[in-house]
Amino acid sequence: MRLRNNPNADKILNESNLVIKEASESYFVNNNPIHIEIGMGKGDFIVGMAKQNPNVNYIGIEKFSTVMAVGLAKIEEDKLDNVKLMNIDAADLEEYFKANSIDCIYLNFSDPWPKTRHHKRRLSYHTFLERYEKILVSKGSIKQKTDNQGLFEASLISYNQYGMNFDFVSVDLHNNELSKDNVMSEYERKFSELGQPIYSAHVSFKGDK
Amino acid sequence: MRLRNNPNADKILNESNLVIKEASESYFVNNNPIHIEIGMGKGDFIVGMAKQNPNVNYIGIEKFSTVMAVGLAKIEEDKLDNVKLMNIDAADLEEYFKANSIDCIYLNFSDPWPKTRHHKRRLSYHTFLERYEKILVSKGSIKQKTDNQGLFEASLISYNQYGMNFDFVSVDLHNNELSKDNVMSEYERKFSELGQPIYSAHVSFKGDK
Repeated sequence: MRLRNNPNADKILNESNLVIKEASESYFVNNNPIHIEIGMGKGDFIVGMAKQNPNVNYIGIEKFSTVMAVGLAKIEEDKLDNVKLMNIDAADLEEYFKANSIDCIYLNFSDPWPKTRHHKRRLSYHTFLERYEKILVSKGSIKQKTDNQGLFEASLISYNQYGMNFDFVSVDLHNNELSKDNVMSEYERKFSELGQPIYSAHVSFKGDK
Repeated sequence: MRLRNNPNADKILNESNLVIKEASESYFVNNNPIHIEIGMGKGDFIVGMAKQNPNVNYIGIEKFSTVMAVGLAKIEEDKLDNVKLMNIDAADLEEYFKANSIDCIYLNFSDPWPKTRHHKRRLSYHTFLERYEKILVSKGSIKQKTDNQGLFEASLISYNQYGMNFDFVSVDLHNNELSKDNVMSEYERKFSELGQPIYSAHVSFKGDK
């Protein structure tokens, strides 16, 4: 899945008006709820979601410009007006989103960072949950999917320790009574074809902040 | 795994002094911590645990006398003095155990009760958690293993909703950095040989009751 580095990617992203370059009070012309995906990769998930839910605005976040450029091409091809992109690091979310401005955060097939000394880089680590809680609306939710056992187990413990509510848990998403609406990311398609169970959790903040 | 009914099982259990027949202030001659397994089946797990941990007292609980009689034979054969049995229903736990008298409860391969109208019979349902919290010491724990996806997912949500702490979660126990100490139940051996992942959770009560 790893792409050869595209030396033109930064230029492509810079020239597109679908890519948000600086912080703003509002990123869309309407007031529809905003959902963000952290680590959008090549964008299959966010493009699928945007088509399925035209009354939701989506922002795809990705720190690697080469993969983001692939996603951008899909959005332009589909002429979607409810998707924008940000080529930033998740650690900088608060510079771009004000408090209570996001309804839902998607974490799909995030880097598992298996080594103990790297666990604090996991997107479900408590320091990231603190950031998410700030930018999410009250009782806002995180929806995670992964094929990675260690990441999923640690994420459940992290959500629980943070005092979040578990709204949905699946240890084999494609074997659940799955809503027909599940939109697959490119990783999800690949791993489930290999027979790997897909793990998923929907959790929400208590809302008493 | 289903056994043909043994018409002599009740008689065998009644005649054994390893089977506890009525509530008492103390079930063992020493004050070692007491761990109970609800649904001990044929007893592979509790016998293995009792051998591994001679300084813990175990009580195996099973409502079906035919399977319990099989477990009883193993305990007698091994001359274990730190295991006793109770042929009771889990709903009646409080008649036999006083408050704060148990350190740990094991739920191994419990009946999944898949039909929605039967969910309240699941041993991780909140009404059972209330019973466990009463008889467990402060911050006492529940350790669960199961092969059943639906039961495991619902159990995690139930523990979370009850406000319990997640101490350990595994969505594939035999693929975890498993302690060499894991003692398999007879169901665990059977299902893991079939390639079925074993799910496990260790959770504890907050201790602020």
